[in-house]
Amino acid sequence: MLVVQKYGGTSVGDLDRIQNVANKVAKTAKEGNDVVVIVSAMSGETNKLLDYARHFSKNPPQREVDLLVSSGERVTSALLSIALNEMGYPAIAMTGRQAGIKTDSHHTKARIDSIDPQPMQQQLKEGKIVVVAGFQGINENGDVTTLGRGGSDLTAVAIAGALDADVCEIYTDVDGIYTTDPRIEPKAKRLKTISYDEMLELASLGAKVMQSRSVELAKKLNVDILVKSSFKETDNEGTLITKESKDMEKVLVSGIALDKNQARVTVFGLEDKPGINAELFNKLADKQINVDMIIQNVGHDGQANVTFTVPATELEMTKSVMQDFENRSNEINYDDSIAKVSVVGVGMKSHSGIAAKAFDTMAKENINIQMISTSEIKISMVIDEKYGELAVRALHAAYELDK
Amino acid sequence: MLVVQKYGGTSVGDLDRIQNVANKVAKTAKEGNDVVVIVSAMSGETNKLLDYARHFSKNPPQREVDLLVSSGERVTSALLSIALNEMGYPAIAMTGRQAGIKTDSHHTKARIDSIDPQPMQQQLKEGKIVVVAGFQGINENGDVTTLGRGGSDLTAVAIAGALDADVCEIYTDVDGIYTTDPRIEPKAKRLKTISYDEMLELASLGAKVMQSRSVELAKKLNVDILVKSSFKETDNEGTLITKESKDMEKVLVSGIALDKNQARVTVFGLEDKPGINAELFNKLADKQINVDMIIQNVGHDGQANVTFTVPATELEMTKSVMQDFENRSNEINYDDSIAKVSVVGVGMKSHSGIAAKAFDTMAKENINIQMISTSEIKISMVIDEKYGELAVRALHAAYELDK
Repeated sequence: MLVVQKYGGTSVGDLDRIQNVANKVAKTAKEGNDVVVIVSAMSGETNKLLDYARHFSKNPPQREVDLLVSSGERVTSALLSIALNEMGYPAIAMTGRQAGIKTDSHHTKARIDSIDPQPMQQQLKEGKIVVVAGFQGINENGDVTTLGRGGSDLTAVAIAGALDADVCEIYTDVDGIYTTDPRIEPKAKRLKTISYDEMLELASLGAKVMQSRSVELAKKLNVDILVKSSFKETDNEGTLITKESKDMEKVLVSGIALDKNQARVTVFGLEDKPGINAELFNKLADKQINVDMIIQNVGHDGQANVTFTVPATELEMTKSVMQDFENRSNEINYDDSIAKVSVVGVGMKSHSGIAAKAFDTMAKENINIQMISTSEIKISMVIDEKYGELAVRALHAAYELDK
Repeated sequence: MLVVQKYGGTSVGDLDRIQNVANKVAKTAKEGNDVVVIVSAMSGETNKLLDYARHFSKNPPQREVDLLVSSGERVTSALLSIALNEMGYPAIAMTGRQAGIKTDSHHTKARIDSIDPQPMQQQLKEGKIVVVAGFQGINENGDVTTLGRGGSDLTAVAIAGALDADVCEIYTDVDGIYTTDPRIEPKAKRLKTISYDEMLELASLGAKVMQSRSVELAKKLNVDILVKSSFKETDNEGTLITKESKDMEKVLVSGIALDKNQARVTVFGLEDKPGINAELFNKLADKQINVDMIIQNVGHDGQANVTFTVPATELEMTKSVMQDFENRSNEINYDDSIAKVSVVGVGMKSHSGIAAKAFDTMAKENINIQMISTSEIKISMVIDEKYGELAVRALHAAYELDK
């Protein structure tokens, strides 16, 4: 088998942990597998370097920032390779450039354009474990670029795709994807498998295990991702993120997600004339504000009420955009004490009554639903923030996810 | 003018010092100069990374060590570039690879094969200050190499040569080259100029300001080096290391050097047969032991006495090599409490009596001279270690270096 493994910042957080990773990698190689390892910077390192940059400038040139922060993963890759060689497992550390990773020029948030698998394949053919510095590549000028948040996961998925690996294992500080956050519902169960689309919904809802972009790429490249714990020695089968199967559809609901980092904006009596909505949402987009749910009731008196949600961190900027509309509406109302609770499952496609059960469950708990939005595999409800955890536990029980 | 400046580890030892370097560089640019800056890693950083490597292996693969330790200079170069841009001086950080530095493949002590000046010239033409990560290049495989001790100085000199710079300024924690170590002789004076050859002799004698290889390269490329202090704001004219001029020869002696890190080995009654000396010194060379002075008196009874000096740190290894010769000699005697005191000056070439004055001076102080070696511009004497400082002060006065 060709196995791609990725170890995140906490997994390589100190020298002993790097040795622990070396042991895991060696074990995988000893079992007869070809292994490519992608590593993050030691935890804290990237932030330390960013703090250094901010010491000199509030807005440092992003090309230089990339050169700066890319050094953290280089250090980890060299150290892991040294540890493996010392254990008698020939290994070679490769930078993003050496691993053939070409990106566009959007410094600090570059996209991978292509990966030349040849240099890595050559090293594997020579019997070496390949250790790649994650999070980075080079652009067409040969400048170092970095891939932004979750960049090392993205490196791992892209390399797994380029090498046609059998599996892409993501080692992290949790041991898989759960039916919901175990800190909210201790009865939450680890899922054995989950589809790309379900994982995408969960990721976009704040499940921090995998970033959406890595899951999207895995779906596109048809790469199986196995999320496992870096620290558990036994009972560490993890969760497989893979393409949807008939089997999965038998399961009604895979998980319940809670996102408390949203804020609601309601515009009462917005002028009901063509183009005003487009103007509103274009202005928000211009400021890179991420609008999530939108609801509009067209009024019968030539006026409309529009409600939408934005990340709570972007509420202040949203308020400044909304000033333009104060004279063109009756009232604008803001609420950052909301929560979005979501029910996710590919089974919804082939089963009816899932939404009804969600609404029933909320009613039984006397929780008022402020907004609803649905997709083929998801129902999201905006409720008062203080009921967030209660709603999660109630839904978790209603769909029998603890069984 | 095209000015190349190099700042060492203590000069960029923390963020405030990097800002101080940025101020100096900006000042040089403001005066109308094109500037290329070479930076070391922040002091302590390279050793920290080497300690990390040694945590995993006593003998880590040197290719991986180079990838590891090269990150320190990349960080500094990016930070300095960020600081300069923030001050309104367009700057660009370049790695060894980006600066066109090609080396051989002797990892951790590579030699520079060539420098392609075009990428740096292009940036200078665009009005930018070029900030190069010192100490590193790439080999023909594209692997990162490092240049060993004094590698950033070497980078600076080589770049100054490749760009045909007007001067190569080396900023360090001393303000120039002195007639002798001011900690030994407070009357020591800073030299305004010194020739490459004199500097080479002083460097090989333990003057730590410049490594021999950088001075050799400067001589070969005819690069003027100006050694200055990073920290002094006024009275910081430094010392110019340059090619020999008629003027210099008027000065009898430029400096007195003291090296206490030597050990003496004397072999009494070594078998006097052809090839035995070659065998002895070949065996020492095989172990990379650096033999400095050698004296041999051919005996009249078919036996010879051989005396040589080695670095004190290599004495233990020398003893193990010498075991092979214990049966082939009468006695082998070791002494690590010796000092080598040297008088250096290009003026010696055209003046006589310099050596005689040195021996006289020792005699007046009742210091016994154990070994003598001379070159065209140097007289070295091995004496008892405890007289080292006294000898330096006496010679400094005898040649009137305090005048």
